[in-house]
Amino acid sequence: MSLKYSSRSLRITWLGLVTIMATFALTRAFRLLPAARKAIMLPSTDCAGARSSSSAASAIRSSSPTSLITRFMSQTSSPISLTDEQKAELELKIKVKGEVIRSMKEQGVSKDELSPHVSELLSLKALLNPPSASSKKGGGGHEEVQEKQKQRQQQQQQSKKEVEDPESDYITPRSENYSKWYNDIIRVCGLAETSPVRGCMVIKPWGMSIWDRIRTDLDARIQEHGAENAYFPLLIPKSFLTKEAEHVDGFAKECAVVTHHRLTVSGDGKGLIADPDAELEDPLIIRPTSETMIWSMFKKWIVSHRDLPLKVNQWANVMRWEMRTRPFLRTSEFLWQEGHTAHATAEGAIADSKDMLHQYADMCEKLLAIPVIKGAKSPSERFAGALETFTIEALMQNGWALQSGTSHFLGQSFGKAFDVTFQDADGQQQDVWGTSWGVSTRLIGALIMTHSDDAGLALPPRVAPVQVVVVPIPPRKNDEDGKVALDNALNKLVADLKGAGLRVKVDDRDYVRSGAKYFEWERKGVPLRIELGPRDVKDGVCVFKYRVGSEGKESVSLKDASAKATKGLDDVQEFLLESAKERLAAGINTMATYDQMKDALEKDEASEYDGPGLYLVPWKCDAANEEKIKEECKATIRCYPTDVNEAGMAEGKKCFYSGEDATHMALFGRAF
Amino acid sequence: MSLKYSSRSLRITWLGLVTIMATFALTRAFRLLPAARKAIMLPSTDCAGARSSSSAASAIRSSSPTSLITRFMSQTSSPISLTDEQKAELELKIKVKGEVIRSMKEQGVSKDELSPHVSELLSLKALLNPPSASSKKGGGGHEEVQEKQKQRQQQQQQSKKEVEDPESDYITPRSENYSKWYNDIIRVCGLAETSPVRGCMVIKPWGMSIWDRIRTDLDARIQEHGAENAYFPLLIPKSFLTKEAEHVDGFAKECAVVTHHRLTVSGDGKGLIADPDAELEDPLIIRPTSETMIWSMFKKWIVSHRDLPLKVNQWANVMRWEMRTRPFLRTSEFLWQEGHTAHATAEGAIADSKDMLHQYADMCEKLLAIPVIKGAKSPSERFAGALETFTIEALMQNGWALQSGTSHFLGQSFGKAFDVTFQDADGQQQDVWGTSWGVSTRLIGALIMTHSDDAGLALPPRVAPVQVVVVPIPPRKNDEDGKVALDNALNKLVADLKGAGLRVKVDDRDYVRSGAKYFEWERKGVPLRIELGPRDVKDGVCVFKYRVGSEGKESVSLKDASAKATKGLDDVQEFLLESAKERLAAGINTMATYDQMKDALEKDEASEYDGPGLYLVPWKCDAANEEKIKEECKATIRCYPTDVNEAGMAEGKKCFYSGEDATHMALFGRAF
Repeated sequence: MSLKYSSRSLRITWLGLVTIMATFALTRAFRLLPAARKAIMLPSTDCAGARSSSSAASAIRSSSPTSLITRFMSQTSSPISLTDEQKAELELKIKVKGEVIRSMKEQGVSKDELSPHVSELLSLKALLNPPSASSKKGGGGHEEVQEKQKQRQQQQQQSKKEVEDPESDYITPRSENYSKWYNDIIRVCGLAETSPVRGCMVIKPWGMSIWDRIRTDLDARIQEHGAENAYFPLLIPKSFLTKEAEHVDGFAKECAVVTHHRLTVSGDGKGLIADPDAELEDPLIIRPTSETMIWSMFKKWIVSHRDLPLKVNQWANVMRWEMRTRPFLRTSEFLWQEGHTAHATAEGAIADSKDMLHQYADMCEKLLAIPVIKGAKSPSERFAGALETFTIEALMQNGWALQSGTSHFLGQSFGKAFDVTFQDADGQQQDVWGTSWGVSTRLIGALIMTHSDDAGLALPPRVAPVQVVVVPIPPRKNDEDGKVALDNALNKLVADLKGAGLRVKVDDRDYVRSGAKYFEWERKGVPLRIELGPRDVKDGVCVFKYRVGSEGKESVSLKDASAKATKGLDDVQEFLLESAKERLAAGINTMATYDQMKDALEKDEASEYDGPGLYLVPWKCDAANEEKIKEECKATIRCYPTDVNEAGMAEGKKCFYSGEDATHMALFGRAF
Repeated sequence: MSLKYSSRSLRITWLGLVTIMATFALTRAFRLLPAARKAIMLPSTDCAGARSSSSAASAIRSSSPTSLITRFMSQTSSPISLTDEQKAELELKIKVKGEVIRSMKEQGVSKDELSPHVSELLSLKALLNPPSASSKKGGGGHEEVQEKQKQRQQQQQQSKKEVEDPESDYITPRSENYSKWYNDIIRVCGLAETSPVRGCMVIKPWGMSIWDRIRTDLDARIQEHGAENAYFPLLIPKSFLTKEAEHVDGFAKECAVVTHHRLTVSGDGKGLIADPDAELEDPLIIRPTSETMIWSMFKKWIVSHRDLPLKVNQWANVMRWEMRTRPFLRTSEFLWQEGHTAHATAEGAIADSKDMLHQYADMCEKLLAIPVIKGAKSPSERFAGALETFTIEALMQNGWALQSGTSHFLGQSFGKAFDVTFQDADGQQQDVWGTSWGVSTRLIGALIMTHSDDAGLALPPRVAPVQVVVVPIPPRKNDEDGKVALDNALNKLVADLKGAGLRVKVDDRDYVRSGAKYFEWERKGVPLRIELGPRDVKDGVCVFKYRVGSEGKESVSLKDASAKATKGLDDVQEFLLESAKERLAAGINTMATYDQMKDALEKDEASEYDGPGLYLVPWKCDAANEEKIKEECKATIRCYPTDVNEAGMAEGKKCFYSGEDATHMALFGRAF
């Protein structure tokens, strides 16, 4: 029994080894091909970034993931001449890829899963021996035209293959291209997919389940906070935007405008057009956020001090017409919750916005195992219309920050813009103070970039759609008794696990081999896998394998399984949080001069640096200097962290940029 | 103690009595004023129906509820001359209204709550003694102009008062105007409110909480059904609509079209306009439903028979540009879930759509206590693009039907339109079969019109946002011991109720008197009220009062309270379902000839009929005849009920309209 597991485990190790070798070879190959490397290092600036034939101007695009190779090939319009060293690298890579494929075949992975690897192998071979490699360069002769046609055909075929196989399971290593790794994780784990509409994504079931879980956890906190759910219209009269002067600047530039309420057949009868007879007198915009709509209702709902505080929240979709999008991090449409509160006093409003920020931070830690830094935004980074914007900033694995939730103290700006007043206890009319706060599907991006690795997603158990996957290993074909025994043990095990409140999935697909199942669920980030084979049943045990936090497999008595799983999953949750906390602590440089920060961030830009990415420095609040630093080294003030500023850490210090007296401790860094 | 309760109870009865008298008087008054009655009977055809100065053409409207009187006055452009009898009626009404106000004052209701009644009283007085009543009619003299100005001012003031007091708590009796009663319930109970955007409503917390509860219940059923939640883009390329020929006919006529992605300051610098430089090459529409988007993704996701069945669901907002809207029943934007499934066989798809219909029906019964009739739509009532549309139809209190959920067997229409094929087990490419199914916030309309009464909303406990409201009755001002004892007993009681899993609210507002609290929570439909006063605490009891299902109050020992409440709420749930079932059974006429149905529906139109509103009749399926009947008596085929048709009830019968051999038993009726 134990021998069997070791052999299986050995095979996996071998697969891991060749994967590492392949990765290594790939990385080196690209070091040697600067043009190719450049093509790959180009940050994917939108949802369509991972696709083959995308044009920035086209509003609707086809969508298909593209392998590194295809991308490389499509970037290369003429045959390449390779040095001997480059050829040797390619040959090594081809050999290693061959090993990978053989090993995968041994593991029994399906044809569908193999096919991208085979495609890559063929592409590598084509790269080594391009059909035109022997033809002469330059000129415009018949041969070259033919060659180009051939190449185009080949590219089209490759492209079609990719379209037909969106399940390519290749994950770019983080060390090679963090941005591409991120996109690969999203594709390979089935979290989201590009849609036919520019900048909008389809959130697939695995991603949606994570969002639903975030929603459930946060919704309870929001109710506890005293806000009630409501729903406000998707469309907003455009005149509303103009009521709050800063707000219009912030949002008019990037909104979807509804101008007609009907389509009709076009004059030539060939298609549909917006019906000119159905033009709206006053266009409507799709909400980028709902302050204006909600304050227009608050005006009706707030009369007396007894109506305050008034707290509403909505779970909704919003739209901001982003030019550069990235799945979860920045998409034109996204899902979020937006809370809006009205108060009789400034103190009440500030306390409310701080309390929600605390809820967000606590949810990130407890549910998502993401430690965050709480702070206030600098004036130039505030929400359009707010007097103060509080934020939680998380550190991603690549050293960049991700703004993960914000809470705004709106002062009386919206109260005045929408003429919302209340009668106080003395009968006097007063202006109303406000807040708004929200988190979005962006949190899924934070989750990915906090815990996952080159093997795929790693999910904290509390937010995992499936906490335990059970993989039964079928007995020999004719072993009927064994089948019955396995079924019985399996049913009992699953009932126990579910009884302990765990989310369990049994993967009993008979057309996928066990190794492929392990590979798949590991990639999808399921925290615990339990294997159950005929011999295990006889021995009264099952085999635990955790996604992270502990090496190797563990044989566990069937009767202890649910208790051990519960404990083990708690440990995984703790492990992920502690690891992330350690990384956050190590990721903040508190001693840097401005030049040191600039130098490090320049090296980071060139992927030649892996030190701390965040800089906690004494700072004199100054929008012009902030802008200069952003231009010079792409770093922005993520926040003025609350704890160190409240402790007076900036006192007596000089600004690390201007040398003047510091007003704050500021956290600088690159951000998504 | 018991005396005290009787006296309180007596006061309520007295209030109820004068309300009934007022209603009666009002009804009679309007019988005598045909113009006024007509004005009131006009069905409110949109969300803005209950407002004062609405213009059908204006896209954005002010919103304020309007009392009957205001509405009457605004319909009446010249002074009215009253007969003596009419004057006597008005005098009676003024007297009764005065009693109502006095009684409310005794109950301690707030000024805000009183003010609409006072307004009504003043309006009635103005109606009896209009300032111009003595001036001569006709002509265009100076006096008359002055008078008209005065009247206009008065109306404006009245209108402003109404705007400032959206909390008017007057509920039109159902017998007087069912449509207005419906709108009143929605306003008075805080379920929803008209918004500044034409045809779109704001769902307020009380309504949203009901929807959230429906969502939670149904979401579990959808998961159990094997569908996974996902999220697809709000915007759809308009070209997608044209792919399915029937679908485009069904939806192109009523959709919001996004044509620009930016606003800019207009040439005159005075406002914002859609930026001409940011016009989309290809306009997008806001989803009216997502078949087209989802099947465009299914094309990527479905390759092999192993990918089938594929079942996804999304909770989303959709938009259909309705010209005539009604809160919850028909609004331009609404919330719903839409499930979309793909199958290898027609049988699989049909079974899926029928199974979801069963889930919808079961949810309606178990959660909402709404019995429904399951059936299939006639061909002309099918969803655009479906081969078969299954429906659940509920009977509203006024005898009309409400389509409460649908499930469509799409055949291969969308599979073919989006070129979705799969490889079967034999390696052959096959077209994919599909279904879609959904329910929406319309269910809240069904809930209102199934259980509520002239006193307000009545909610089945399982869906009630608050199941038990506890109203503590404070001890005398200086009775400190009494206060402590009350607090302790209250805390214990609430802990017990919550411990039993009940949703409990304590109404301890110190600025509202108990009677007003009772009135408010009764209107909002809370199933059980528990009163707890100082003497109750001494006696170790509390007082139960159910919203429906049992008369009078009940003294219950504090230690039994949570068990009795749990049992009592189950009884209420059962009572509401059984009552609705009885009404449904009595609401179907199975013996009517066509002429009898036509006659009854004409009488119904004139509000002179209160017999059964649904007609189960033998029918020969024929679209032309169906259309004729719709024209002749506004009745449509709600469905071909499944049970009676499967039992072969139509066999051997003749169509009640054409006299030809019947093909189905059809359920005819008026519908919302």
